[in-house]
Order: sequence, then C-alpha cells, then structure tokens
Amino acid sequence: MTNDRRLGLAVAQMGPVNLADTRKSVVARLVEMLREGASRGAELVVFPETALTTFFPRYWMSDEEATERFFETSMPSAATQPLFDVARQLSVGFYLGYAEATPEGRRFNTAILVDRSGKIVGKYRKIHLPGHSDHKVEAPFQHLEKKYFEVGDLGIPVFEAFNTRVGMCLCNDRRWPETWRVMALQSAELGILGYNTPSWNIHWNEPPHLRMHTHLVSLQAAAYQNGMWIGAAAKCGFEDGFHMIGGSVIVAPSAEIVAQSLTEADEVIFANINLSWGENIRNHVFNFAKHRRPENYRLITERTGAGEPLKPAA
Amino acid sequence: MTNDRRLGLAVAQMGPVNLADTRKSVVARLVEMLREGASRGAELVVFPETALTTFFPRYWMSDEEATERFFETSMPSAATQPLFDVARQLSVGFYLGYAEATPEGRRFNTAILVDRSGKIVGKYRKIHLPGHSDHKVEAPFQHLEKKYFEVGDLGIPVFEAFNTRVGMCLCNDRRWPETWRVMALQSAELGILGYNTPSWNIHWNEPPHLRMHTHLVSLQAAAYQNGMWIGAAAKCGFEDGFHMIGGSVIVAPSAEIVAQSLTEADEVIFANINLSWGENIRNHVFNFAKHRRPENYRLITERTGAGEPLKPAA
Repeated sequence: MTNDRRLGLAVAQMGPVNLADTRKSVVARLVEMLREGASRGAELVVFPETALTTFFPRYWMSDEEATERFFETSMPSAATQPLFDVARQLSVGFYLGYAEATPEGRRFNTAILVDRSGKIVGKYRKIHLPGHSDHKVEAPFQHLEKKYFEVGDLGIPVFEAFNTRVGMCLCNDRRWPETWRVMALQSAELGILGYNTPSWNIHWNEPPHLRMHTHLVSLQAAAYQNGMWIGAAAKCGFEDGFHMIGGSVIVAPSAEIVAQSLTEADEVIFANINLSWGENIRNHVFNFAKHRRPENYRLITERTGAGEPLKPAA
Repeated sequence: MTNDRRLGLAVAQMGPVNLADTRKSVVARLVEMLREGASRGAELVVFPETALTTFFPRYWMSDEEATERFFETSMPSAATQPLFDVARQLSVGFYLGYAEATPEGRRFNTAILVDRSGKIVGKYRKIHLPGHSDHKVEAPFQHLEKKYFEVGDLGIPVFEAFNTRVGMCLCNDRRWPETWRVMALQSAELGILGYNTPSWNIHWNEPPHLRMHTHLVSLQAAAYQNGMWIGAAAKCGFEDGFHMIGGSVIVAPSAEIVAQSLTEADEVIFANINLSWGENIRNHVFNFAKHRRPENYRLITERTGAGEPLKPAA
C-alpha cells in the first residue's frame, strides 16, 4: 500500500424513536451526535434510515395518515434546519434517512448526503423494499414498506464527495450483492447506509440471533468483495415495544469490523479510515478488469426470479 | 418450514499432495474418504480442486511439462477408475476437481459431478482464474492459473442430481457474488466446490489470518443471499513447504457453519442437510421474483472493470 488517504468517519446509531417523540426532540439528539462526531475528527457522520420518526411501516394506517404524520415534504425543513446549520458551523457532513413525500404526491424511503458546507450533494431512494403491501392481521406487527413507498427511481448512485466516491443505500439494500457491485463498478470507495431491522421475522420462525448474524456477514462480504469501506447506522432498541437490532458498524475492505456499537441507544462510533486500503483488494483479488467475466453473468439482468437451469454447454 | 428433504453431504478435505506423491497413492486416500463418507450416510462427497496432484500453478515450467505431469487426458482414467468403482459399489456420488487436457490440447481447471451409479452427470470448468501468466521471479512462489488454464467455457452450470439442483464452482469463483447469483437464478439448492488457497498473498502484504476470514465470510454470505447450502473442500497444509489454508465447511442458507474441519490433513466432515431450509430464505427475504430490480443492475453485465459514476438521475 503506497497511499494513505484518510477520512474521519462516524456512525451515529440511534436508540428508539417512539410515536410520542417530536421531530424537534429527535433533531436535538442528531445535533448532539453530530457534535460528538465532529469532536472526534469526523468529516462525515452517518445517521439511520427514517431517522426522524419511529419505523412506522410496522403500523397499518391509511396512506393519507402515514403521509401526514411521518413524511417530510421539504428538506431541510423548519424542524431539520438546525442539523444543517450545525453541520456548516462544524464543517462536518452527514447522511440522513427520512420518508420523503414529493410535491407530486409520490412517496419514497430516501437518504440524503450533505457536504461539510451544509449543502445536499446526493440523494438516494430505496430500491429493495422489503415486506408486503397487504394488511397481515394475524402478524404481531406489519412490514409495509411496499405499501408506503414506491421503488426508488434514482438508481444506485455514487457521488464524488468527501475527497472520495461515496455510494448510498438503505437497510435491506445491504443484503443484496447487486447493490454493492453496482457501486463498485462506479469506483465507490465508501458505501453508507442506515437501517431499521426488526429482531423478529413475521414471515417464518427465524431465530432472532440470525438477524444480527446475517446483517454483519452481508456487510463484511460486501466490503471485501468490492474493496470498499462501509458505514452502517441502526435505529434500534424498543420502539413502543417493538424491538430492532443494533450492530452499527464500520467495516474495512478486508472484511474486518473496525468499530461496532455496543448498546441499543444513541451511540457514536468512529474510525479514521484509510481509503487507500481498498486498493489492495481492488488491484489484486478483485481487479475487476482482469478477472470479471460478464459474459457468464447475463442471468443477473435477464432474469428477475429464479427459473430452470440453463442447458449445459456442449 | 413445511418440508424436510434430506441429503447426506460429506466434505472430504485433503492434506497436502507433494510432488513425489503418485496418482495411485492419492486415489487410495480419496477412496478411503469416500468409504468414510458413505459410512456416515453421505450420498455425495465433495473433494478438493486439483485433488489428484499438488497445486502445481505455484511452479514456473513449460506448458508441455505441466501438461505431461499434472493434467488428466481422460476421466475416468486407469488411475482414477477405483474411485468410480467404489462410488458405484457404495452408491455414493462425488465431486472431484482435476486439471483437464482435452484431445484438442486445451487445458482447463475442471470439476466433475459423479452420481451414485458412478456416472459423470456434470462438469464445470473454472471461470474466475486468479493470479497471473508471467513469471514473477521475485515472488516466493507463483500463481500461474492464467498461464496453465483457459477460462472455462461451460458457464456456471446447475445440474438436476441427488434429488435436488446442484451448482458447481471452483476455488476463487467462491469469492465472486456473481457465481452464486447465477446458480440461484437457476434454482440451485446446493453449491459445491473445491479449493487450494495459499496462506500467503504474493501481491501485497496481506495478514494470513484474512485468507481464512474472507474465505468463510464469502461462503456464508453466498449461502444466505441465495438461500443455498454450500459444501467446500480444501486441499491444505504444507505441500513441499508451501502452506495452504484448511477451513473446509458445510454452510447453511442461514449463513451458519454447520460443520468445519479442524485439521490440515485428510478429514471428512458431514451433515445431514435439510434442503428445504433454504425455502425460508428464498420465499421471503430473498424472494427474487418479488424483490429483485434488474433494471438497476445493468452495470454488472455492461461493465467489466470499474469506471466513472453514472450521471445521477434527475
């Protein structure tokens, strides 16, 4: 490794946001963690998905009620302006997830990237929406992302920012290797995301420890197989009695976890990451130009669901 | 989980094969492990990559010398026939990796799948050839797969066998998420492979513990993200002084390692795997038909190497 290009990266995990919590109180918590990150030398702080509200897709309600209570119609807004102001004052950027309602009435699960001058320089709208759109009356809670959100229409974007290239995704996107590969094929060196991951699976009797295990394994493999750093921020703990995993992490391109949260509360983790470290991976084992064989990958874009085996070549 | 479809799966790790070892002595070791696997109830035994010889791509030599010493021109051959005979007698199938020279003089890094009647029912030729083709005089050893082998021409195949669908790959293929996704898009429920993984990286100063770590993380993520079982067999230990990792494993679709080798010698591990377990994954979190968004994945087949970020959508 010849280079040593550093970025101060903080991941700001959030404990629960309950239904009764106001936007103002939530933003105050975010501002406090932004200050803590900056005090440790962070240039970029990663906040969770739907950071401003409880993880409301667990509740069945009308689209109108959801929009009214849980979606943002502008960003920044009166409630979130303090976060942008403090970012500019401290010269620290951030990633923030929130539910977005457009002027045309479309709704997305969105994240923005804000630079050190407080300016929005990137936006992502979640593509891999998990769960369902129907009311599962028997389930202990809902997972209605397919009801409340449209599939994102901004692709899997990579932004030139923070003296590097930053890919953005959200929550369930992290489990899909395609997400990371598309970032890496755009030369991303860092991928960031927020998530809300219920500890219980309403679809089958999944032992809850697996929720943490598969979260970590997916991020470690993604970092390694793409030679990228990853920062992932949970909202976690009991939101009005519904438990979500913590496990916020910073993962190196060597698949090693270099920082991990311990609690299920507001908690800032930090690493002074060396962006060049990924070159060891991208120049050798995962030198895409040298080793990839896309002529063998065509099912990945030709098929959506699984189908029959291809006829073996002669 | 409603079904319970079982397969007795053994992974037969091999300790070193040195230059001085004969094909006959190696086949005797394979036969002994085939018997051990069958005695535990295995219907399928997975052997390593280039199981019949030392991992010769570490040596610089002429193509003619390599072909003469290390490649098989027929399969079965006089030397390997006992393995096929015992397989038929015991009604146990196997996966076997070997260096293949075709009648036309082409050379591949190949694996075959043999059913319980001793018949070859599948063949794979390695696609992701690691290493280099030039002589690295300064290196402590070579990694000349790109010299001695052509890129495989049989795709990433899935075979209907053993009352399930079996995908095959080899060694470095396991680190590429595309390999597993292409298998899963053909409804594979089990993926099997052999590998020879040097403990030292001749390209950069990689701490050797990472060779095991990234091996395991890649297999765990692949199993989970595709709802597949994976069986992976090492050839390992010191081959004439050159060390390779062990870590042979059977991995469940929940990303859990259900069996793992302890030694760097010949060692059979076994699990009575429930093929239906993967349905929990494939029907929910990785229900491809419901959740995949191939319109966002096109760079995976359109680009080989990494390039510039796409222009953000409006």
